[in-house]
Amino acid sequence: MDINSDLGESFGAWRMGDDAAMLDIVTSANVACGFHAGDPAGILQTLRQAAARGVAVGAHVAYPDLVGFGRRNMDPTSSELVADVIYQIGALQGLAAAAGTRVRYVKPHGALYNTIAHDARQAEDVLTAILAVDPSLTLMALAGSPLIGWAQARGVRVVAEAFADRAYNDDGSLVSRRLPGAVLHDAQAVADRMLQLVQTGRLTSITGQPVAIQADSICVHGDSPGAVDMARQIRAHLLQAGVALQPFVALD
Amino acid sequence: MDINSDLGESFGAWRMGDDAAMLDIVTSANVACGFHAGDPAGILQTLRQAAARGVAVGAHVAYPDLVGFGRRNMDPTSSELVADVIYQIGALQGLAAAAGTRVRYVKPHGALYNTIAHDARQAEDVLTAILAVDPSLTLMALAGSPLIGWAQARGVRVVAEAFADRAYNDDGSLVSRRLPGAVLHDAQAVADRMLQLVQTGRLTSITGQPVAIQADSICVHGDSPGAVDMARQIRAHLLQAGVALQPFVALD
Amino acid sequence: MDINSDLGESFGAWRMGDDAAMLDIVTSANVACGFHAGDPAGILQTLRQAAARGVAVGAHVAYPDLVGFGRRNMDPTSSELVADVIYQIGALQGLAAAAGTRVRYVKPHGALYNTIAHDARQAEDVLTAILAVDPSLTLMALAGSPLIGWAQARGVRVVAEAFADRAYNDDGSLVSRRLPGAVLHDAQAVADRMLQLVQTGRLTSITGQPVAIQADSICVHGDSPGAVDMARQIRAHLLQAGVALQPFVALD
Amino acid sequence: MDINSDLGESFGAWRMGDDAAMLDIVTSANVACGFHAGDPAGILQTLRQAAARGVAVGAHVAYPDLVGFGRRNMDPTSSELVADVIYQIGALQGLAAAAGTRVRYVKPHGALYNTIAHDARQAEDVLTAILAVDPSLTLMALAGSPLIGWAQARGVRVVAEAFADRAYNDDGSLVSRRLPGAVLHDAQAVADRMLQLVQTGRLTSITGQPVAIQADSICVHGDSPGAVDMARQIRAHLLQAGVALQPFVALD
Repeated sequence: MDINSDLGESFGAWRMGDDAAMLDIVTSANVACGFHAGDPAGILQTLRQAAARGVAVGAHVAYPDLVGFGRRNMDPTSSELVADVIYQIGALQGLAAAAGTRVRYVKPHGALYNTIAHDARQAEDVLTAILAVDPSLTLMALAGSPLIGWAQARGVRVVAEAFADRAYNDDGSLVSRRLPGAVLHDAQAVADRMLQLVQTGRLTSITGQPVAIQADSICVHGDSPGAVDMARQIRAHLLQAGVALQPFVALD
Repeated sequence: MDINSDLGESFGAWRMGDDAAMLDIVTSANVACGFHAGDPAGILQTLRQAAARGVAVGAHVAYPDLVGFGRRNMDPTSSELVADVIYQIGALQGLAAAAGTRVRYVKPHGALYNTIAHDARQAEDVLTAILAVDPSLTLMALAGSPLIGWAQARGVRVVAEAFADRAYNDDGSLVSRRLPGAVLHDAQAVADRMLQLVQTGRLTSITGQPVAIQADSICVHGDSPGAVDMARQIRAHLLQAGVALQPFVALD
Repeated sequence: MDINSDLGESFGAWRMGDDAAMLDIVTSANVACGFHAGDPAGILQTLRQAAARGVAVGAHVAYPDLVGFGRRNMDPTSSELVADVIYQIGALQGLAAAAGTRVRYVKPHGALYNTIAHDARQAEDVLTAILAVDPSLTLMALAGSPLIGWAQARGVRVVAEAFADRAYNDDGSLVSRRLPGAVLHDAQAVADRMLQLVQTGRLTSITGQPVAIQADSICVHGDSPGAVDMARQIRAHLLQAGVALQPFVALD
Repeated sequence: MDINSDLGESFGAWRMGDDAAMLDIVTSANVACGFHAGDPAGILQTLRQAAARGVAVGAHVAYPDLVGFGRRNMDPTSSELVADVIYQIGALQGLAAAAGTRVRYVKPHGALYNTIAHDARQAEDVLTAILAVDPSLTLMALAGSPLIGWAQARGVRVVAEAFADRAYNDDGSLVSRRLPGAVLHDAQAVADRMLQLVQTGRLTSITGQPVAIQADSICVHGDSPGAVDMARQIRAHLLQAGVALQPFVALD
């Protein structure tokens, strides 16, 4: 099993998260590319730390919206979105080469992530970008979303991820953040859930039903000390149960 | 002989220059990377046009100063400058791959170009960046500047360029733009000068003395209809005299 | 009658439109505030030219999207949108004071203009911003849109505008740009239409029906030589017919 | 005596400092204007908190360099710098009006602050901007710097500030940050120094000599919990000794 987290999200004088701590926990790092977060010098530092620890690197591509942290919906044209995604992947590839590693996958961020999970046009644009810059890149996508089939149809390798601290509906979709109980805060319970997911391929939904979630990676957060602790506990719990933790791609 | 020009400098709704016209004239295109000019979609379009015409592509890296068009001096730290240059080269490499071509060289733009011609610290930063991302990249530098020796000492291949429309001092340096006669406007006279340069390795300085200029490329401008006409005339004049025009790097 | 146009839309080294020419034609200038276009030095120059000609100045506020020229839909929170609009109005007020004039009105730009014409939430945010920074400011809105009523309900003075070069549906709405005939190109015909509008309060719709358009201002474009010519012809035609052209607000 | 600090320096999702805590300590707030830090919604929130506490508001104007936090030297033209400063003051005036307060003074930030302390050309540009937008604004400047005289010569009211946590040379200039002992860390000793300054107009220099510092305001920092504690201790120490703390301008 793979554990991933969003990293490289500091910007200039502003710090966000504890990348060094998280890189001891995760096996894959979604690294910001400068459009929603991340300045080149800070990204390079995170990439060097990831390379030193054997953590796989993904391009965390986003809409061009620094002040909104890539969380606001936008409607770029296809020409814009394709080129924006290529630009970000390329920039991270350059920095990764300088850090002695490579970009293995692409994980869209924030509003772009949510949009392409169900919006076919923008999803195709992101897939077009991946195929244009490097067809060997894997796409990381929301488990159960239509995006997974769209990627497969285009010949883009795709891995599905589950969110450790989120509740699921009976149909396998995420409970909206606007509803009570959508976000889980008990680190031990979350660690138990993730072990259950790895061992059975199922989670307990918010209504108490078992729901199948086909996930190749678990997404954890590192944006607060509590989040880092929860991530650490998930890792320890899985390792203790004998689950092998490694990137979903082989690092050469 | 090679002819180069700055391209890809439109930004969003704003047009600059006539890239299609210039790509029929030059053999090497210095393509903006988004820091002083160029948005991803526009850059990609210019790269596709360059690829279709067999024009070599260089990364026109700059300080992060869109509103100042990269023309204002800045004093980034080495950590910032190294990473900024890598980021820009990488972004252009990604877009170039999508356009079916490759980045062959790096030409710093504007204030960064002028600064590293004589500032050893920032020059070393740019060289470090080139070596970190792709040691096979060539650096394009001001003919006669200390930068050429610094690049050679680091093992970075370097090509020197002369400016078609600029007057030179007796010591081979450019006449400052603040002085009268610094910029040449007579297209026929400029074409004659460039043929003289190619055939003799010398130009006539602003005081009328012959001055040796060791140049592998001629820089022309395309930011006005008059500039495009002058560039076209230089190309025609060199071809008529039997000068072979081709990129300074072999395109495979 | 008032004639308005979008001005101050150059940015750094990039030119857009011919502000000096347009300021001899219009009576009100919608001046960019830096979010979709306009850098402070360029804005200040346009404001000085407007002040010298007695042209009224409005704040052309937009989403923060320079590369998209404010033409892409975004979904800012109310907190963000209110503050963004206040910030832009304030910045323009400062520059206007330096230029010896004042900001008299607010005209949202591009995607924000289209959105608030019918989206009550974002419309209320813009109205809240106007009331917070200066309740004496007028809002310029699309003739016939719900925004006009919303503004009146909040006590914001509102003027409605018609678009000179656009076709109208029978219900008074604009024909979508995606449909044939949406944009009019015959300058003489457009000038005739605008005189008809001023004299009768009606236009001929795209189906040939008379349609009432209650407009206090006519919007013309200046982004091409042809557009400037059309604007000049409209002005001349109205003046020749004895229509008084003046800003919709009294300049003191 | 007045105590000032830099506030409003968060940006989008990135937090910096504890504005609420600092606003209970200082009497004047240098509020970021969006060029080095500060987004409109965050700035507005800080302004509302300042207004609620009767803290005077100043415009913390900067070079346009978000990723460099305004700490990197730049060489804008006079036309650019004048307009950039006016734009920022105006934007903050707009937000201040919405928050129920007013901008009383201007304090340049970072590299701009350091540059205009001794660079006459850029200093004149900032003074020109202040006079153009609102001649009643006060300029906050480095105690002992030539800028103070230049401001007075232009008729701009100026207040001088001392830095609480910095060592001074015998000539009243700041000890360079590159030298040992330049920054003071003992909160009690710093509080004692500031009381000495208020009571005697003198500080003990780094060599142990008394040095006269004519200061109307004391600058404290809030960018770390330790900095907030030091600021709180300075305030308490001055109040205990009977020093009246109030803005250097009367708030109406």
